[in-house]
Amino acid sequence: MPSRPTVSDETEGAILARILPLLSPSSSATLGPGDDAAVVSAPDGRFVVTTDLMVHGPDFRLAWSSPWELGWKAAATNLSDVAAMGARPTALVIALAVTSDMPVVSLEEFARGVSAAIEQLSPDCGVVGGDLSVSDTFTIAVTAFGDLEGRAPVVRSGAKVGDVVAVSGALGNAADGLSLLFRDAVDEDGRPDAARAARLRETEAERLAAQLTPSPPIADGVLAAVAGATAMLDLSDGLAKDAARVAAASGVGIDFDSATLGPDVARALGGGEDHSLFATFPPGTALPGGFRRVGTVVASPVAAVTCDAQPVDVAGWDPYAGWDGGRG
Amino acid sequence: MPSRPTVSDETEGAILARILPLLSPSSSATLGPGDDAAVVSAPDGRFVVTTDLMVHGPDFRLAWSSPWELGWKAAATNLSDVAAMGARPTALVIALAVTSDMPVVSLEEFARGVSAAIEQLSPDCGVVGGDLSVSDTFTIAVTAFGDLEGRAPVVRSGAKVGDVVAVSGALGNAADGLSLLFRDAVDEDGRPDAARAARLRETEAERLAAQLTPSPPIADGVLAAVAGATAMLDLSDGLAKDAARVAAASGVGIDFDSATLGPDVARALGGGEDHSLFATFPPGTALPGGFRRVGTVVASPVAAVTCDAQPVDVAGWDPYAGWDGGRG
Repeated sequence: MPSRPTVSDETEGAILARILPLLSPSSSATLGPGDDAAVVSAPDGRFVVTTDLMVHGPDFRLAWSSPWELGWKAAATNLSDVAAMGARPTALVIALAVTSDMPVVSLEEFARGVSAAIEQLSPDCGVVGGDLSVSDTFTIAVTAFGDLEGRAPVVRSGAKVGDVVAVSGALGNAADGLSLLFRDAVDEDGRPDAARAARLRETEAERLAAQLTPSPPIADGVLAAVAGATAMLDLSDGLAKDAARVAAASGVGIDFDSATLGPDVARALGGGEDHSLFATFPPGTALPGGFRRVGTVVASPVAAVTCDAQPVDVAGWDPYAGWDGGRG
Repeated sequence: MPSRPTVSDETEGAILARILPLLSPSSSATLGPGDDAAVVSAPDGRFVVTTDLMVHGPDFRLAWSSPWELGWKAAATNLSDVAAMGARPTALVIALAVTSDMPVVSLEEFARGVSAAIEQLSPDCGVVGGDLSVSDTFTIAVTAFGDLEGRAPVVRSGAKVGDVVAVSGALGNAADGLSLLFRDAVDEDGRPDAARAARLRETEAERLAAQLTPSPPIADGVLAAVAGATAMLDLSDGLAKDAARVAAASGVGIDFDSATLGPDVARALGGGEDHSLFATFPPGTALPGGFRRVGTVVASPVAAVTCDAQPVDVAGWDPYAGWDGGRG
């Protein structure tokens, strides 16, 4: 056995035996990993489910993200989709397709990152199952579950004219981090460069963390539902684009108040991947948790998104655009 | 717009608008695709969950499988894992990472294959959500759910000395199909070849179908549970290897009766990917559905798997072994 074994040096069973003990258990698991399927409790009689892929290249670069950071982000972003329904996260399953030359210790670090995110963001949640395959392209598939605790799910279509528009979490920080990486952590040919990324971390740790290890306000999802949120979603594609989704689904307009969006309004409206929570509340609601007012739901036959009543660009974030296939 | 648009020609939203109507709806969905997450009913108060990746290269080749067939197989194999717990399949989520040059019609065909498998094998089930990404490596991630209808899950660890060992479904047919493809559907350099695969289909449709579009006995999972099965699993890695898992988990031995395994016993014991159901039943049980007796649970301090009391090779099927990276 080599001193630093890779996935191709060990059997799937041996690798899983090293990884599974590192994954946070779920307090909702009535049967955990090891059989054909897991069994998860759903005391509400329903469960919330969301699934998401992260693909090396378009979604992350190993030159920029450590395996621990990838585990953290994969867990955090999926927990955020559960929270955005007003549900309490209960469990995750994680399927990995890894290159055969990946060191097994990298998979252990990935598992530790998953567990660290769960423990910080949603400690009752845990990993109940998964799958491990080999591939030329490192791919992470997470499916996350939540319990509604007897409440209706908070969907996109419930915003009402006069509602307060509110956000919990940062706006634009994750996009800043990615811009820094694309500017300062690439080589002369524009390819992701690990050494330059390491130097960038020395001075820009906070903005890089917003991109590489986001900390969405998971508990605020349940708080918003309990407070009567009429619509909610996870901000993954930028405030303006995601607001346009709520506007279209609800048949309303959304008008932001520029005074609430910080010094760089375009950055707050356009930057994606913050995984903050966007929600609308009936007027007069005491905003729960970290929510702050950023605008108002208005009447609009064309479901317009505006800022200070002026149209805003809702093209927003597109994970496909600009993907040049560069790896790193 | 080109006459045969690819994934790179259309937005994610436009592609999803074409695919979603082709996917079977789930009668258990209380909120379907289109929000941050779906909501699925879980009348039992628990749900069964399994996840599985299929990766182009190690798990399938586009030269051999059509998109329709891949959709069928992705659904069928995950339904089988749910059935192997004794649960009724309720819902699937499907995340796809596709190459940017994939025609959108191929994704539509994939969706039609998923729906065809569901309609034939488990018509109450359906697709409640998913994700679509681009990747250099076509990757299919399916997570499947089931309801236990108040019963205990049928796990691997419950087999008792004296139990009848039974199988529902074929043994070795899927491995035959794969052997044919590797022998007759490759070019001079051993690479998968679509034209030769097409010719092979003219004479070997049935054996290829066992590999490319398996039809696991999904309904027999619930029937086995109701009949009192003490252990059950999905036969994905070969009868002998999977029996060894039950033997180890249950602390018993399993002795097969060669007279029940057909003319080619090695093929029945060693061939993987049949997705037949393996179950153990108390002695005297009237075997339900398509189950037939193939052996007996015996006392064995080393959890031995034998045939006519002689040791058998339990190395079985290994999806990693022999993967040469050939694409096609």
